[in-house]
Amino acid sequence: MSEQEGLTVKKKDNFSEWYTQVVLKSDLADYGPVQGTMAFKPTAYAVWESIQGIFNTMIKKTGHKNVYFPLLIPESFLKKEAEHFEGFVPEVFWVTASGNNKLGEQLAVRPTSETIIYYFYSKWIRSWRDLPLLFNQWCNVLRGEIKSTKPFIRTSEFLWQEGHTAHATMEDADKEVLTILDFYQDLIENYLAIPVLKGKKSEAEKFAGAYYTTTLEAMMPDGKALQMATSHNLGQGFAKSFGMEFSDEKGEKKHVWTTSWGISTRLIGGLIMTHGDDKGIILPPKIAPIQTVIVPIYYKDDEKGQVMKKANAIKDKLEKINVSVHIDDRNTYTPGWKFNEWELRGIPLRIEVGPKDVKNKQVVIVRRDSGEKANVKDGDVVGKVEGLLDSIQKNLYEKAKKELQNKTSGVKEYSEFKKIIENKGGFVKASWCGDQDCESKIKEETGATIRTIPFEKENKLSSCIYCDKKAKNLANFARSY
Amino acid sequence: MSEQEGLTVKKKDNFSEWYTQVVLKSDLADYGPVQGTMAFKPTAYAVWESIQGIFNTMIKKTGHKNVYFPLLIPESFLKKEAEHFEGFVPEVFWVTASGNNKLGEQLAVRPTSETIIYYFYSKWIRSWRDLPLLFNQWCNVLRGEIKSTKPFIRTSEFLWQEGHTAHATMEDADKEVLTILDFYQDLIENYLAIPVLKGKKSEAEKFAGAYYTTTLEAMMPDGKALQMATSHNLGQGFAKSFGMEFSDEKGEKKHVWTTSWGISTRLIGGLIMTHGDDKGIILPPKIAPIQTVIVPIYYKDDEKGQVMKKANAIKDKLEKINVSVHIDDRNTYTPGWKFNEWELRGIPLRIEVGPKDVKNKQVVIVRRDSGEKANVKDGDVVGKVEGLLDSIQKNLYEKAKKELQNKTSGVKEYSEFKKIIENKGGFVKASWCGDQDCESKIKEETGATIRTIPFEKENKLSSCIYCDKKAKNLANFARSY
Repeated sequence: MSEQEGLTVKKKDNFSEWYTQVVLKSDLADYGPVQGTMAFKPTAYAVWESIQGIFNTMIKKTGHKNVYFPLLIPESFLKKEAEHFEGFVPEVFWVTASGNNKLGEQLAVRPTSETIIYYFYSKWIRSWRDLPLLFNQWCNVLRGEIKSTKPFIRTSEFLWQEGHTAHATMEDADKEVLTILDFYQDLIENYLAIPVLKGKKSEAEKFAGAYYTTTLEAMMPDGKALQMATSHNLGQGFAKSFGMEFSDEKGEKKHVWTTSWGISTRLIGGLIMTHGDDKGIILPPKIAPIQTVIVPIYYKDDEKGQVMKKANAIKDKLEKINVSVHIDDRNTYTPGWKFNEWELRGIPLRIEVGPKDVKNKQVVIVRRDSGEKANVKDGDVVGKVEGLLDSIQKNLYEKAKKELQNKTSGVKEYSEFKKIIENKGGFVKASWCGDQDCESKIKEETGATIRTIPFEKENKLSSCIYCDKKAKNLANFARSY
Repeated sequence: MSEQEGLTVKKKDNFSEWYTQVVLKSDLADYGPVQGTMAFKPTAYAVWESIQGIFNTMIKKTGHKNVYFPLLIPESFLKKEAEHFEGFVPEVFWVTASGNNKLGEQLAVRPTSETIIYYFYSKWIRSWRDLPLLFNQWCNVLRGEIKSTKPFIRTSEFLWQEGHTAHATMEDADKEVLTILDFYQDLIENYLAIPVLKGKKSEAEKFAGAYYTTTLEAMMPDGKALQMATSHNLGQGFAKSFGMEFSDEKGEKKHVWTTSWGISTRLIGGLIMTHGDDKGIILPPKIAPIQTVIVPIYYKDDEKGQVMKKANAIKDKLEKINVSVHIDDRNTYTPGWKFNEWELRGIPLRIEVGPKDVKNKQVVIVRRDSGEKANVKDGDVVGKVEGLLDSIQKNLYEKAKKELQNKTSGVKEYSEFKKIIENKGGFVKASWCGDQDCESKIKEETGATIRTIPFEKENKLSSCIYCDKKAKNLANFARSY
């Protein structure tokens, strides 16, 4: 890697340009030929595979099953639920021909799969014995994005999982929505090391066609919120439009309650923004595809044998305790070039092994988050690596948590609200009367929307930040991606 | 499960109807609203996940990396390689609008990804240091199928992996093609328990745009061949169309050699056809998502505690040796109903635990392939289960291997060739002059195509089965899916 292939801009000087550079230079992504599309390069896709593995374990343990539904959805399906159709139709890619034949009905390339899935569920659900139906799919989704596209964050095609469940009662659906939201929180906070706010969406911000939407929202370094996950109770609206009925234990016909929930490759964008620095990205150890890279250093041929032997021995020892290790034994690059490259790619730990280390029965270990360097005796390497990986995982979360706290303000006056949104950004906690008029005026005047309405009842409400009338909720406002 | 939910037709009496029933009734698939589309239900998708896990391990160990490229491909990309375009364009689904906006250029929903991937590779490949480039993606692909669609076997959308590699030399590309073909053979024969013929495709049957195509072909019970996997050396044709050049160690510009290779959810169709019987599907233990189902049997409440305790103890013991176990503790169905359902779904082993078994310190184990039943002492359960799973895996393969041998005929006369293809089906080994005219006349007159040209040189060639001229190759002909 020549000098100019590293980042040429600092994260705090020009966040947007920094993000673009880090995405293009850290083996993460490249721009596609069609507006808003992108290629996922190996590091980004490996992070996605880590996320898939973690989340699959969570949902499979609780009885959910993976399935796969068709990409192409007849337009008439989307039209069955009016709000849903209105919400998605402006972004839908339409297939109108197959080969040289014009199709009778145009087909949507799925922007989300509720309608096609309910076509099947209405056939599959007959009796209370079939409930709950707990299915999930991992797939691509397309939504034509024209404005402010950004790799991972806002793209015309992205990868996600969408869970779609059907239940006999509202209570069962409510419970499912929160179970999944907890899984998402566990994944995002404990694996991706990104702290989030948890709550409900307002009526204006909920999913098109939902009864209610719950969400997790993170705060990015530029003061804009990023929606990380949503889990919706869809009520019985779709059940009525699609005829999803079951016979209960007494033989009575009832409509099911459905939920849907999703996380997407947007999480990777959040990860880059939250943990990256001026050297590149930083991958939290729990989701890093490679946790430790070993760089062997030798100048003469007779040094090579000893150094490689030692490198391999360390690799074996670390793999026994399930640390993933890569030895970078390319002879086409210098050690210094390799150090830069693995820092750019965010590998949590680097182990350097040179002839002197062989002689002194030690190695040099460098942590990616702080740059801290230590000489470690051979016998201590395993314990040290384990400890450092833990420490990096915690440190990344703690740092991000502090950032979130710094970027959260409580205000009582609208003038202050506007000033903070305009200058500092971040979440602004404010009391709100619950009226959509106030919400939309605030959005119009400041660009900030309600990101979450916390689940916990707030006792110390002041009057509505906008209209001064009696407040119903505390809400977290922010500008967002 | 009431009586009529089982299969109502025998595999040997009406193979096609048997296949449809088994697909619909064994938790495998359901038909979609758009011609040729389908939903993958939990058992089918879990088999796909098994296949993904096995193949990912093989390719990652050999330095391949997973990535993801855009679904939508500009028409102009497809047109850059003429043969390729001609080959795929009749089946392409075209996106012509996004929301209410007509697109300037129509976009193909990927029928295969060579062209979009080479758009990126031509940017990413600069030097010999960048080679070999070994990438793979798991994704959906769409090809508008109108005639003889069949779930898993021929569908308008399917799931697959497509590997796309770039190399400095022809030799490297040749080697990659065969390495992957060996991985496929290992997967299909040793995990899916389906024996295959291995070889090259003829010029007429090769992939559109390929230099040559290698393939694995299996024989289905109805005498038709099923293409299970292909691995192509694409030569330098695409490299020239897409400008994929690298500087070699001397600084000279050269075109890369590319390969592509794929397996798809069609494998699941082959699995169903090969191993299924009149009771349902049979999953080879190595890819079964559940290897052993335990059905607890009790009639009185005071029996339940003991029976469930024993069932759980067995589950724990089996999970320790990595056998995947499911206890079917639903109280909404009878044991007999459950036996039928798990047989329909092809779970390799069933363990029955009743009050008498608790008393006698034993269980009843039933194998799915032969129906054989055995009383097994508690202390022997782990060893017995391990042995039976091995035995089932081998038995399924051996049975299929015998079938393949029975369905392979060697002929020297065209009249015999026609008779066998018409009446018995299967592979017909015959000598062939290598002329495309003979090949296409044979296809026209019998419906049989060349499925493989074996890699091994054949010494005992007779004259061409069709024209009687000097033969160049032995070829395996068959009708196919």
